Amino acid sequence: MMPVLCRPAVDVPEHAITLEETLDLARRLHHDHDSLPLALRLISHTEVRTRHLVQPIEKTLSHPGFEERNRVYVEESRKRVPPVVTRALRNAHLTVGQIDAIVYVSCTGFTMPSMTAWMINNLGFRTDVRQLPIAQLGCAGGGAAINRALDDCRAHPGANVLIVACEFCSLCYQPTDTTVGNLLANGLFGDAVAAAVTRSAGGSGIDLERNASRLVPDTEDWISYAVKATGFHFLLDRRVPRTMEQLAPVLREVAGEHGWDASALDFYVIHAGGPRILDDLSKFLMVNATMFEHSRATLTEYGNIASAVVLDALRRTFEAADLQPGARGLVAGFGPGITAEVTLGRWTADDSTPAPPGDRVQNRRRSLP
Amino acid sequence: MMPVLCRPAVDVPEHAITLEETLDLARRLHHDHDSLPLALRLISHTEVRTRHLVQPIEKTLSHPGFEERNRVYVEESRKRVPPVVTRALRNAHLTVGQIDAIVYVSCTGFTMPSMTAWMINNLGFRTDVRQLPIAQLGCAGGGAAINRALDDCRAHPGANVLIVACEFCSLCYQPTDTTVGNLLANGLFGDAVAAAVTRSAGGSGIDLERNASRLVPDTEDWISYAVKATGFHFLLDRRVPRTMEQLAPVLREVAGEHGWDASALDFYVIHAGGPRILDDLSKFLMVNATMFEHSRATLTEYGNIASAVVLDALRRTFEAADLQPGARGLVAGFGPGITAEVTLGRWTADDSTPAPPGDRVQNRRRSLP
Repeated sequence: MMPVLCRPAVDVPEHAITLEETLDLARRLHHDHDSLPLALRLISHTEVRTRHLVQPIEKTLSHPGFEERNRVYVEESRKRVPPVVTRALRNAHLTVGQIDAIVYVSCTGFTMPSMTAWMINNLGFRTDVRQLPIAQLGCAGGGAAINRALDDCRAHPGANVLIVACEFCSLCYQPTDTTVGNLLANGLFGDAVAAAVTRSAGGSGIDLERNASRLVPDTEDWISYAVKATGFHFLLDRRVPRTMEQLAPVLREVAGEHGWDASALDFYVIHAGGPRILDDLSKFLMVNATMFEHSRATLTEYGNIASAVVLDALRRTFEAADLQPGARGLVAGFGPGITAEVTLGRWTADDSTPAPPGDRVQNRRRSLP
Repeated sequence: MMPVLCRPAVDVPEHAITLEETLDLARRLHHDHDSLPLALRLISHTEVRTRHLVQPIEKTLSHPGFEERNRVYVEESRKRVPPVVTRALRNAHLTVGQIDAIVYVSCTGFTMPSMTAWMINNLGFRTDVRQLPIAQLGCAGGGAAINRALDDCRAHPGANVLIVACEFCSLCYQPTDTTVGNLLANGLFGDAVAAAVTRSAGGSGIDLERNASRLVPDTEDWISYAVKATGFHFLLDRRVPRTMEQLAPVLREVAGEHGWDASALDFYVIHAGGPRILDDLSKFLMVNATMFEHSRATLTEYGNIASAVVLDALRRTFEAADLQPGARGLVAGFGPGITAEVTLGRWTADDSTPAPPGDRVQNRRRSLP
């Protein structure tokens, strides 16, 4: 029996901003910027139609200082994480007392103690829960969280591990950064909270068979933070969109070590950092682009929500409800390093535990015309 | 066969500051502070005789901004981590290519990508090394690193895990913070780099049998960072020195679950956050204070070096060379949360691999009068 990654719960904040609004803002704020036409073209090409932010756009655009930004992060995470965790636990048919470890990934706020301590104190988790807060893996944090949760289940047989990805990218908006890469990033990233549970036994979802990490050599400065008095400044190199040429062989290698063909899997849950990632992966893996539809939907409807992308793409995979038990698939998170965190597994359905009512309703609504 | 935590390597920077110099500084900088006599008394009571800093004291006292501080962190860590890692690998009789995972703990600088990516790119580690950077567990990070390394070995049989604790506490010195807790902290913390390897098989050191995490409820605000434009501001509550009254029962409980009596072990490797921790642990566990001599030596000679304390206390335990195979002991890291990370294990000697020459020399010198 392999540990099973159960159905994720995801929530996005109530303040939505459309692509048109984003383009209008860019035109207004950067009307005298030499590369405005290029920036507008790049933003349009992201395919991000809507993003959701923790604050109204007026507040998002002002920078009240790193201290206040981080205070908002704390306040918003304490408000928005608990309901998502509740739903993730329900999806896994577990109570809060049955969780043995919490992996909390977030690169958009920094607190010490970590949110894991707050969750134990305030949400009823046991005091002997193992805490694993990870900040510095950025967008790869979602894949890393799944991989470390699997490791925890293997190291502690019977363990149930809660994964939380809390990303408020809008709190890292830096009005003074006007490189083209940053203007693009301003139109690409969104906010979201996602959670999922890895059960050592029982549960429906992905039966996790293998995990792997890979670093692409000498790409450390392609995605990074500059740490400043104004907080974390996101630096995006123009070479990043072409990363899949190097990462597709990595996925092929990892799958190959498992005796699988990365081009012939039944499902793919991919970190959709941008549209080119999915297009290129389709090309280099020779996989039909429709296989990435859930990752693409995350990008289109929520933007790049950093470490939460893979969990949201997985949520959509669950909602599509079109996988048969035994279907083979791959989860891949990508982020700074450049690091790839890859998991291989098979779809499994534990018939002894019915899907919770709320999720059945979602499926039914999805199938309506 | 259990995973074995091998002999750590530790280095402290060349800029030393004595207790007398610290007290003189406090008198000079805070001559008009109402609580100066109290602060001086508290600093004197720390038993910290010397600390070692990455920069000369004049530079340490000036605050050039969070961005410059973090730049210094990056520069100094890249300079000081590699030689310590080289020695830790040698202590474990492994080459860089035999390491499967790196756990890097540090709460005194923040980078994304993490130092783990830099180490893979620059020190010859394999690109499929698992990266686990942890920042938000603070001083408990040393214990957490050992516990997560054990988990990694259990999850990936045969794995060798490198642990690195890199703490430059002096880069978090905040001249504007003049609460008594901060004046005390200014005289307590030191800088150090420590590293050690956990081998899945072979090796001499602690045969790791059990790990456990515990949170003391409702103590989240006892040790914390305020995140500001000037960087991380360390907040230390006056209740912290009394924490052992709550943590001693935790150690007793964890040992009890393993069928051991926490009061009757053969060795103790304890996070010596301050002298009261060791005094109180002696009292509440009813263990003779001499059992904590290595932890106390770390505190006295290096100060509180955060997550590196347990690795340095363990290094001293190795150098004392007075444990017999089978000796039972406990490693305990404490930090914000308040979190305790506890490991239980037995001393083991792998006779097939002799101690490296450098370490034998150290032992011989130690035994000279």
